[in-house]
Formats: sequence, C-alpha cells, structure tokens
Amino acid sequence: MISIREVARLAGVSPATVSRVMNGTAKVDEIKKQKVEKVILETGFKPNEAARTLYKKSAHLIGVIVPNIENPFFNEMAKAIENEAYERGYRLTLCSSNDDIEKEKNSIELLGRMNADGIILLTNEDEILEKTKDARIPVVVLDRTVKHKNEVASITSDNYEGGRISMEHMLESGCKNIVAMRGPQNVSSGRDRFKGYLDVCREQHIKEQYVDCSYDYEDGLVRTEEILKTFPEVDGIIAANDMAAISAYKVLRRHGKRVPEDVQLIGFDNIIMSRLMTPELTTVAQPIAEMGAKAAQVLIDHIEGKEVPQKNIFEVELIHRETTR
Amino acid sequence: MISIREVARLAGVSPATVSRVMNGTAKVDEIKKQKVEKVILETGFKPNEAARTLYKKSAHLIGVIVPNIENPFFNEMAKAIENEAYERGYRLTLCSSNDDIEKEKNSIELLGRMNADGIILLTNEDEILEKTKDARIPVVVLDRTVKHKNEVASITSDNYEGGRISMEHMLESGCKNIVAMRGPQNVSSGRDRFKGYLDVCREQHIKEQYVDCSYDYEDGLVRTEEILKTFPEVDGIIAANDMAAISAYKVLRRHGKRVPEDVQLIGFDNIIMSRLMTPELTTVAQPIAEMGAKAAQVLIDHIEGKEVPQKNIFEVELIHRETTR
Repeated sequence: MISIREVARLAGVSPATVSRVMNGTAKVDEIKKQKVEKVILETGFKPNEAARTLYKKSAHLIGVIVPNIENPFFNEMAKAIENEAYERGYRLTLCSSNDDIEKEKNSIELLGRMNADGIILLTNEDEILEKTKDARIPVVVLDRTVKHKNEVASITSDNYEGGRISMEHMLESGCKNIVAMRGPQNVSSGRDRFKGYLDVCREQHIKEQYVDCSYDYEDGLVRTEEILKTFPEVDGIIAANDMAAISAYKVLRRHGKRVPEDVQLIGFDNIIMSRLMTPELTTVAQPIAEMGAKAAQVLIDHIEGKEVPQKNIFEVELIHRETTR
Repeated sequence: MISIREVARLAGVSPATVSRVMNGTAKVDEIKKQKVEKVILETGFKPNEAARTLYKKSAHLIGVIVPNIENPFFNEMAKAIENEAYERGYRLTLCSSNDDIEKEKNSIELLGRMNADGIILLTNEDEILEKTKDARIPVVVLDRTVKHKNEVASITSDNYEGGRISMEHMLESGCKNIVAMRGPQNVSSGRDRFKGYLDVCREQHIKEQYVDCSYDYEDGLVRTEEILKTFPEVDGIIAANDMAAISAYKVLRRHGKRVPEDVQLIGFDNIIMSRLMTPELTTVAQPIAEMGAKAAQVLIDHIEGKEVPQKNIFEVELIHRETTR
C-alpha cells in the first residue's frame, strides 16, 4: 500500500503537509492542498489508523470504565454512550474490571498510551479517580462532584429526590411499616437517596428503619432475610436498586409473602429487567439512556474545544407498576 | 518525552534496533541489546502505544462485534472474552451494532485500520462475514461452520442435543401437549435446536407443534399469545431461549395459567436472569463463560502462531429449576 511519504513525494510537499490536509488541523496553502488532494484521489491512499493517531495525537477513541459488565445498569448506559459516540465519529473501548481496582488502573494507563481522547468513568472509586488524574486525559464522571482539573463534567440523576419519591410513594400506597435498604455510603447515589428517605421520615414524624445493602443481587438476598428477621411486621421495602428489589421479591415469595398484598416493594433505576420480571417492578426511573448519551456528548464537546456544563443532573420519575398498590 | 530516535541515538543504534529490542521480534546483537536496555532504563523511555503499533504491526487489540449489547447472553459472553484477553495482554474493543448491519460493517473497517489482531463475531449474519473476509483479519465465529480462509475457528454448543434434551425433559415431566418456539432458521443454533426437537417427536411418534419466534423478549410476548390462541390445550412450552421464556411466563400469568401446574416451561442458554427470576427458570445451559474464554483463547493462540482446533463444540446440560415438574 502507498505510504504517506510517497503521497508527499508525488505531490511535491512534506509528509506533515499531507497530514495537515487530511486532518484539517492547520492552514495549508491552497495550491499545495489541491496537489495533495489530487494525489490522494489518484492513488487511493488510505491512511493507516495507527499512523493517523501519531500525526493527529488523537485516536478518536473514548475509554469507558465499567465496574462490572454484568450489571444491567452499566450495560444499558454503555450502550447509550456507544450510540452517541458512534454518531460523532468516536469509537469506544470498554474496560470492565469485575470490581478489580488493579485492572481498572491498568486499563487507564493503557488508554493513556493509546492516546485515548477521553474517559467516561462509570465507577467513582477514589483510587481510580487519582489514577485518571495522572493519565492527564479528560474524564467524565458519574455520580460524583467534579474535583480534579481533568474532570470535565459529572453526570448524575437527582438521587435525593428519588429517595424522597420512593418513601412518599410507599406512604401513599398505605404502608405502615416501611424498611429501607440503605445503599453504599461511599458513593453519592447511596448517600443522597438515603438522605431523601430520611428527610421524609423526619417531616412525617416516622421512625427510620433500614439495613445496609450494596447494589447487587446477592447482597439483596441476604439483606431481605435480615429485614424479615429484624422487622417481622414489615409491609413495605424500599430496595437499594432494581437488582436488590429482584432479590427481595424472591426472598419474600420463599417466605410465603405476597407482593403487593402482604409486602409492597419499590426499586431504583428502571433497568430493562424491572419491566421484564413478573410482577413488573414499581421503581424510580433514572433516564439511563439519556444520561449515557449526555456523558458522551459533554466529553466529545470538551475534546472538540467547546464549553460544557460541569453539572448535569437528570430528573427522576416514579414508575408505578405491579409491586405497589 | 524522549522519543525512540533519541534512545537510538544515545545507544548508538538505529531506531529499528530499539524497536526490535523492545518487542523481542527479531534477534539483536547482545552488545547492542544491552546498550539499548541501559538507555531505556536510564531515560525512563516509555513507548507511545500508537508508535508501538506502527513498529510492531500489532495493536494487541481484539474487536468483539456484538449484535446487541442489551442481550444478556452476549454480555455474559463478552465479559468472559474480556477476562481471558486481559490475562493474555490483549484489550478489547466492543462494537455493538443494535442489529444495524451498516454499523457492523463500519466497525470492521475501522478495526482493520486500527491494526486489530483479530475479531470475535457474536453474530453470524452472512453479510458481516463477507466484510470480515475483506478486512483480512483472523476471525473467530460463533454458531457457524468455518467457511472462509480467515475464519480460524468456530465456537458453538451442542444445540442439536439441547433441542433433544428440552423435548425429552418436557415428556418426562408429564406434558401431553407440548408446543415449541422454533428459533430463527437463518442461524445454525435455531436450526439445530429445532432438528433435535423434531427428531424426538419422530422417534416417539408425537406430532410436532410449533410457532416461529426470534430470540428476543418482545417477540416472545407475541408468540406466546399466538400459542395460547392456536393451541389452547397447551401444557408445555419449549421457548426459543431464556428471554422468550421470560416473556412466555409473563403472558401465561396474564391469562391466569399457573407455572408449572397448568403449563410447564423450559428456556435455553442459562443466562443469569434465568436464575434471578421467580419462579426460577428450568433451562438448557450453554457454558457461556467457557465459550467466551475459549473464543479468546483460540483467537490469541492463532495470532501468536499456534495451531488451534477449528471446531469447538461445548456440551449442554439440563438445569432443572421451578418452571417444570
């Protein structure tokens, strides 16, 4: 295949000029430009992507760091990011880490060496964020306030309002004995949802009742057993998220409890599975697809030199289905 | 940052020699090698990944083409591929296409330009396979016989046996009026499963009863309605896959049918969701994680010059849970 050097020789210009014409990165004398374009057309020259990257210092590549590719929430969001990035001419490298921080760190280092243009972090482990700072690549973060210079924007939903909505809906549905699963307190989504729940309790003079629960199915099973043991009179469960709600439903059924007749149940996220399950899950929806698209938009806008909003907070919405009255 | 040329100058060798030392791709005079290594150590030289790619003609990159990132079967498999590839020092670019063939084609072209070392295709659209042939990159395919020169291996489970097992299990569970959902007949998994079902019917002198159904949830809803209308006496449904079984369960419940008391139900795949749903789904398991790991193994072995087995067929297994007796 013809090389950029040969194109340059045939056009009587330097390889750097050919590169500038191809990438439109700097002004080129109009006559030289026409010569180069003519040679490119005649020779059918196609730049090797790796070579382009070297010239352009841009790989049109975005790294997405996902803590666990099996979690449907991250998948649905990654899909939305990919669609948007594709429309804008960027491709995605998905790095899933299986919650292994060493692996996430390695991925970030590799993305740096690959001249990735930016990173979207669907995790907010502090250690990882330190690493991205070192990598000097613009980062869009989820569920976290922008802290470092290279963090260009954060994408989040209104978790506080979501926490309020869940509790208010359980009260309106007639629950007298509500127990909340308090999500992980080292991430803002967990803290904010819980604060929303607490504030409603205080306003309504209700004693708070909760157990701690992480955002996954397995822990949801364990914590629902704990709820039934500690609060045998429970008639409403606010699950940490949809995955934990799916577990809660399973455990309630095992104990002979009917949903929603004996115990009402609400999730958080509105992952696709919440609609697929039977009974369909009442939940607080985050606009997952819109949030993913926004993450790609602000990152690419930033890469392309545009001003972007640092805070991007999305509204949440109650989706009333079959697990509450 | 120091460049490869400066390293070469300091070591008194050519840049190509530096490259050979770094990559171990060819023999280098021992004295020159030591000089280069000393300079690399002293200068802290780190090769830019894009530059390495140019020298090595390998990006240590594998493209995975997934028809739909939302389908849990493909996700679980992609995760296994990623784990294995990571262990072997390769990274993954995941291209999901939302079943858009144009997008898949573009992805393949881009992977070629990126010097990707290989592609794992989780789709077997003929059009896409033609495109990968043009890209001259080694390809590992799923659920399809190896046809072209650049298709190094295929990964599949024993779908025929799976089709037999489903039908045999429904008969053993006492079903008298079984209806099968026949999966897509343009892919081998659909054809083979159906053939397995048919052969059991013929051996046992049972009249076959089936409707056509694609591998997704939405179509599963429609087809289950069709089954209930066409075969009102149905007491056993063999779903096209787990997603369609989840739909079938929902429609059966809507019609007041109890599972497994009134209608028994079996899926195919053993995706994680089949265990999460309530009642837990009886299904025929494909070893999804092992298949994904194998796909990465054979592709990387091939890339690294090793002999690999062309046909890789995995055993299936009945997972008896709560939707059959």
